[in-house]
Amino acid sequence: MTQSLRLGIAGLGTVGMSVVKIIREKASILALRSGQEIVITAVSARTRDKNRGLDMSGYAWEDDPVKLATRDDIDVFVELIGGSDGPALIATKAAIAAGKDVITANKALLALHGQELAEAAEQKQKVIRFEAAVAGGIPVVKALTEGLAGNQISRVMGVMNGTCNYMLTRMENEGVSYDEVFKAAGALGFLEADPTLDVGGIDAGHKLALLAAIAFGTQVNFGAVELEGIDAITINDIRQAADMGYRIKLLGVAQMTELGLEQRMSPCLVRANSPLGQLEGGTNMMVLEGDEVGQIVMRGAGAGARPTASAVLSDIVDIARGTRLPTFGQPATTLVAAKQALSATPAPYYLRIQLADQPGALAKIATVLGENGVSIDRMRQYGHEEATAPVLIVTHKTLRSTLDQALKHLPLTGVLDTTPVAIRIETV
Amino acid sequence: MTQSLRLGIAGLGTVGMSVVKIIREKASILALRSGQEIVITAVSARTRDKNRGLDMSGYAWEDDPVKLATRDDIDVFVELIGGSDGPALIATKAAIAAGKDVITANKALLALHGQELAEAAEQKQKVIRFEAAVAGGIPVVKALTEGLAGNQISRVMGVMNGTCNYMLTRMENEGVSYDEVFKAAGALGFLEADPTLDVGGIDAGHKLALLAAIAFGTQVNFGAVELEGIDAITINDIRQAADMGYRIKLLGVAQMTELGLEQRMSPCLVRANSPLGQLEGGTNMMVLEGDEVGQIVMRGAGAGARPTASAVLSDIVDIARGTRLPTFGQPATTLVAAKQALSATPAPYYLRIQLADQPGALAKIATVLGENGVSIDRMRQYGHEEATAPVLIVTHKTLRSTLDQALKHLPLTGVLDTTPVAIRIETV
Repeated sequence: MTQSLRLGIAGLGTVGMSVVKIIREKASILALRSGQEIVITAVSARTRDKNRGLDMSGYAWEDDPVKLATRDDIDVFVELIGGSDGPALIATKAAIAAGKDVITANKALLALHGQELAEAAEQKQKVIRFEAAVAGGIPVVKALTEGLAGNQISRVMGVMNGTCNYMLTRMENEGVSYDEVFKAAGALGFLEADPTLDVGGIDAGHKLALLAAIAFGTQVNFGAVELEGIDAITINDIRQAADMGYRIKLLGVAQMTELGLEQRMSPCLVRANSPLGQLEGGTNMMVLEGDEVGQIVMRGAGAGARPTASAVLSDIVDIARGTRLPTFGQPATTLVAAKQALSATPAPYYLRIQLADQPGALAKIATVLGENGVSIDRMRQYGHEEATAPVLIVTHKTLRSTLDQALKHLPLTGVLDTTPVAIRIETV
Repeated sequence: MTQSLRLGIAGLGTVGMSVVKIIREKASILALRSGQEIVITAVSARTRDKNRGLDMSGYAWEDDPVKLATRDDIDVFVELIGGSDGPALIATKAAIAAGKDVITANKALLALHGQELAEAAEQKQKVIRFEAAVAGGIPVVKALTEGLAGNQISRVMGVMNGTCNYMLTRMENEGVSYDEVFKAAGALGFLEADPTLDVGGIDAGHKLALLAAIAFGTQVNFGAVELEGIDAITINDIRQAADMGYRIKLLGVAQMTELGLEQRMSPCLVRANSPLGQLEGGTNMMVLEGDEVGQIVMRGAGAGARPTASAVLSDIVDIARGTRLPTFGQPATTLVAAKQALSATPAPYYLRIQLADQPGALAKIATVLGENGVSIDRMRQYGHEEATAPVLIVTHKTLRSTLDQALKHLPLTGVLDTTPVAIRIETV
């Protein structure tokens, strides 16, 4: 074995150090699997003098990731810096310009600059690989781009933020409020520095945008993802959904419709006995639907240093083996700028309405919904001690726009106590 | 786009024709994804004059698959003939000798001749790909060989025979006997011509042997798979297992132990609320456990023409993209001939014992188990109207050999009505 693949690793946080550790500890099996030795030539991080638990003196050090990315003695730039702009973007561009392959775990970077970076890489005949950017250790990018390459994909969906799923599961299992579980998640270090990245669905939205590009051959477009966080979900929603056989998940869904590409990251009800409904805690789950293969479900750790490093290693071994494919599965110049379709697929909706407890209130609601083209599948009124009555409605399939129109008219009935809550029921 | 990848397809059954159809209908997207055109040059099957629903006159015809495999105008031999020996083996060898890459859906062929074929292919610098041979449309070979390439695999397991899972699920849900559901599965065409391939675990055992080779870098060794079918499972076992929170699955498990490689394909109890326990009907599920990534679960259609064709297409696109890796993930000459370890991992066991209804019978059983080193975790005696009493025992973790020793002594108590049934409880 004479050849070796030389890496420059930028970013030595928990993921970066896990990558370093795996490459050191598994050198011989990685060489057998790769057909060549995997070596780390140089590294870069913000602070040089820091105890990282491993002797790093064998690697050249660069303070500047751009210098690292452009060194003559590296073949692959491994970007584990993070952040959609700043050093990660600058160094990635520099690496491509210098003719390096790139491996990144950075969903934000690719969700915002993926098209531009992919085009630049392909002009240089270099590859960008990002298995670690989506769903941590689950090899879903590979499954979609390679494993399902013979399929026309109809829908991609999944639970892509473990923190949100952990929070929703705890709310259900322990009956604690959103605020309480939000505090607990923060105390456990499960939340990003800016928690809206998690609970606002932004982080998961980045991942969905990347999957949509692969699945449908479209230019990645995070701006076209409809985002809705989980902060409006109450314990009552969770209980009443359960009562009807559903669970609430922060679900990402991408599908191609006649009106364009629909990308949603929002709380949805899913059947409790479906694989997505059964998913508990911080685990991620991806559901891929193809015209030939049917439905493929993948479940595993969506975060954490070692699962993420596992995904980075998958990309490293691929490049060492000589596997080269376009960033988004087909040449970047052939990716289509898809029209954005907002909630274009009809679905049943769950409505929670707090009604003034007066005769005929329910009839008024039903009438307004009907007049606006929303028909009711099921309705439950719960026993109550307050002056207002909680009412739960499951509609037949309707367009979100039709529903919104109906919801606009509901206050005119004068029987609403609070603004109705509407949550989509996704057929999984 | 000037290049093209030229296929010779042998075997035009439902899978073969689905492959042909996909290549025709998706020519342009496949070319975009592959970087070159995928063309079928020639085909072969037992009968030429047969209405296959598609005009096949554009392809050269060969009666003899060996002639097809060695044609100058094909790059890849796609073997969809089936069978571990005979034409499939002869033609595959001929293809390799003639310098062709090989794609096969044939688990039996590779389970029995995989090592020899892999060595031959690598001598010629050719690849053998077999995504379709394991778990149909689920890209599990890819996930294990590529997606988890940075991991040391600790255990691979799964439900790999949809027919058996369909049968067990129906027994549980409808309360019908094994014999009845066996007949029903046969009438629905779910059983192989030789049904022991399904219910005896042979077909699934072939798949397990292939996964074990990939997972542990060992020479494929189907002869070392401990095989036990589902035909001894009764409706009572299923009910009593459910009563204790378990479901019975025909589960394949491969793991490396200190004593050697353990490969089992046998009925097991798994927790009802685990992903494997929740799997219903004809679907397959694979569970991959790696030291970095933790547990990855994959679920999907394990059989059927179109899902299997989807897997074949994945291999075709990979080869067209230039992806080349050793058959079992590392060079065939480096694969180790693993020592066979029979049920080497301790586990709790479920025991069903039919006892003579006499005072002290239960105590005698418990004594013999204890004297032979098998300790009891839980025990239930069920109400009964017959002269004998059904007793159900869950043991603490024990070696199968220890348990067998104890079971051998049980008849000496004189209180057994029938031979005890022992089923392993796999921690999933």
